[in-house]
Amino acid sequence: MLDEKETTRIEAFSDGVFAIAITLLVLGIKVPGHESVVAKGLAHALILLWPSYLAFFVSFITILVIWIQHHWVFVHVRKVDHLLLYWNGLLLLVVTFIPFPTQLLAEHLSHADSKLAANLFTGNFLVVSLAFLGLWRHVYKKGMLLNTMIRGADDAASITRYYHVAPMLYLVSFGLSFISEFAGVSSCILLAFLFSIPGYPAKQSSE
Amino acid sequence: MLDEKETTRIEAFSDGVFAIAITLLVLGIKVPGHESVVAKGLAHALILLWPSYLAFFVSFITILVIWIQHHWVFVHVRKVDHLLLYWNGLLLLVVTFIPFPTQLLAEHLSHADSKLAANLFTGNFLVVSLAFLGLWRHVYKKGMLLNTMIRGADDAASITRYYHVAPMLYLVSFGLSFISEFAGVSSCILLAFLFSIPGYPAKQSSE
Amino acid sequence: MLDEKETTRIEAFSDGVFAIAITLLVLGIKVPGHESVVAKGLAHALILLWPSYLAFFVSFITILVIWIQHHWVFVHVRKVDHLLLYWNGLLLLVVTFIPFPTQLLAEHLSHADSKLAANLFTGNFLVVSLAFLGLWRHVYKKGMLLNTMIRGADDAASITRYYHVAPMLYLVSFGLSFISEFAGVSSCILLAFLFSIPGYPAKQSSE
Amino acid sequence: MLDEKETTRIEAFSDGVFAIAITLLVLGIKVPGHESVVAKGLAHALILLWPSYLAFFVSFITILVIWIQHHWVFVHVRKVDHLLLYWNGLLLLVVTFIPFPTQLLAEHLSHADSKLAANLFTGNFLVVSLAFLGLWRHVYKKGMLLNTMIRGADDAASITRYYHVAPMLYLVSFGLSFISEFAGVSSCILLAFLFSIPGYPAKQSSE
Repeated sequence: MLDEKETTRIEAFSDGVFAIAITLLVLGIKVPGHESVVAKGLAHALILLWPSYLAFFVSFITILVIWIQHHWVFVHVRKVDHLLLYWNGLLLLVVTFIPFPTQLLAEHLSHADSKLAANLFTGNFLVVSLAFLGLWRHVYKKGMLLNTMIRGADDAASITRYYHVAPMLYLVSFGLSFISEFAGVSSCILLAFLFSIPGYPAKQSSE
Repeated sequence: MLDEKETTRIEAFSDGVFAIAITLLVLGIKVPGHESVVAKGLAHALILLWPSYLAFFVSFITILVIWIQHHWVFVHVRKVDHLLLYWNGLLLLVVTFIPFPTQLLAEHLSHADSKLAANLFTGNFLVVSLAFLGLWRHVYKKGMLLNTMIRGADDAASITRYYHVAPMLYLVSFGLSFISEFAGVSSCILLAFLFSIPGYPAKQSSE
Repeated sequence: MLDEKETTRIEAFSDGVFAIAITLLVLGIKVPGHESVVAKGLAHALILLWPSYLAFFVSFITILVIWIQHHWVFVHVRKVDHLLLYWNGLLLLVVTFIPFPTQLLAEHLSHADSKLAANLFTGNFLVVSLAFLGLWRHVYKKGMLLNTMIRGADDAASITRYYHVAPMLYLVSFGLSFISEFAGVSSCILLAFLFSIPGYPAKQSSE
Repeated sequence: MLDEKETTRIEAFSDGVFAIAITLLVLGIKVPGHESVVAKGLAHALILLWPSYLAFFVSFITILVIWIQHHWVFVHVRKVDHLLLYWNGLLLLVVTFIPFPTQLLAEHLSHADSKLAANLFTGNFLVVSLAFLGLWRHVYKKGMLLNTMIRGADDAASITRYYHVAPMLYLVSFGLSFISEFAGVSSCILLAFLFSIPGYPAKQSSE
């Protein structure tokens, strides 16, 4: 009963952090003041904000997918040890940081230093995927998973492979952002959709 | 037991997002600085903020009504599939966006481009109502509802009709905002009150 | 079981809103920029911020007391009807508004229009206490309370009296703020402490 | 059953406040505007923001550790009295304040008044550790702990000693910040890691 209560609260706290991080993103879209649009009109000013909408959209779907994966992992966690709180804390640290590179991209994507902004934007997601892998490996190696969910060494190994693929793909996005900032950022949309396809983990739980 | 736990967390996450989106709205009301009110006084400056209060009020009651409807739908959902997470994610995406057109309306309603601001404000609510309809249709078509709640094809069909009416009415608000920004925005107040009247859905659950 | 689930979610949503409103208050304390403190130093700039600290403190303890009272009332609520969602929504509307008059007071308390800022600050709390009374009256009159908690007409009547006193006392604070802005604001500290003394409601539940 | 429900809600509200405070920290990192980086480039501007990253990191891990300790204490609390709500409220008051000295440090650490900013930054953590001690002492003295968790006077006394050490160590950090702002702030990193090592409290619960 103690374990159950602990899991509930680590999930509640994490859900809170994910929910706030995802909702704060909109504050990064700066509303144009009415004095600043006198010359060219509001429509023109709103069109110029396209990097803000793109950054908002990519960060939103990425945080959503991380939350869904986090959700999926914790459904199968039966107990919480002290170190799991810190692996989870590391993941939350890099997730709560997301609004900063998001706003940076929104501000600089249509200006001189767009490549650096895209590097940091995709780089942050790369670090998030590494933190997620660390969390999963800890849960898996310590045998914290419910036996009913993982029905064999093969299944568990395939899920572990699945979570190893994510950092590799985000590394590609990060690399792409050095060649083309648009390619780097756009590839993160593809990755969010890719990880939203029910893969090994989801299949295990629904089979 | 697994399903129950999943529903709890999708609701907790959504509640968090709704709660934050509704509370962030107040940040859109810009406090006049003490230097800026020296000439005409604070009272005058506060009266000039009326578009901010109006935008805050309309967005608040609209998010509240969406939350209540979301709450009602999830009371009757007995299981969560992968796609539901994404329908719900789409709804949250357009709900978390609401503070942006709200602040846009607050800034521009008493200025030159008030009509465009009202178009986007009402247009966002239209998209929210469409996302909600999509969520409901997914839940309904996949047979995810508790049998005790929906007692027949007639009942379910009438709820579905109810959720089809919302986008049509918000389309009217959107259209109105092209003729008169005040008519468009005001009609959203009417719609929030209309959808707060216990209609088919609420009647089904309490009968 | 349905009712229990509904109560859980209305409490979770309200807790979220209270938690966010109380935490957003700190954003109203504007950090002095390093350029602006070159002349007189940071210490001087921080001392000049005293109205911000005062406004933060008063609003924090007031929201905390409202949350505790809200918490207490909902412990005893056994079912949720549609209208309760709206009484609760009205309370949340005026609670989420609190950061605005709080920041207004922080900005104007040591300037020309301090009285108006104090009127709105105390006036907002008055409206909150009225919304709370409305919520309680609805819950009480509809017989939504657990019988084990309210053991007789006398008990229930004394709690109702208790919640009638709050708006009267906040009306006094509001009135005081017209005579002296400091008296008005300070009296809200006293009221927060007064309502934190376990009175009739808390006594009923622990006896 | 009543008590259980009360504990759930005080934890939910506290989790919400911790989650929001920890997520708001990122708003303190000011994104450099694209006009301001024309001369020296974005990379230069981002490097100059190092005090923001440091302040974000230290406050993040400190709030995380406070949350983990809070979590641990409440796992063992079996009932909630009125005064506990206020001890918890005092803790939340000083925790929600953290974003202010964090942003102050971010703004002033590389400028003239860095020492004062570091004093307030470390001083806030000192006050938090004192509020936490007060919360623990109340819970412990009133016999609110589950008997299964604390198996003797020796165990309870050793946990109490543990929570007495924290304010003493934060007092050292506070003192250090008068000698060197970097030493003061850095020592808080050490303390966060120190209190993340499972000490007496965690050992009691897992033994």
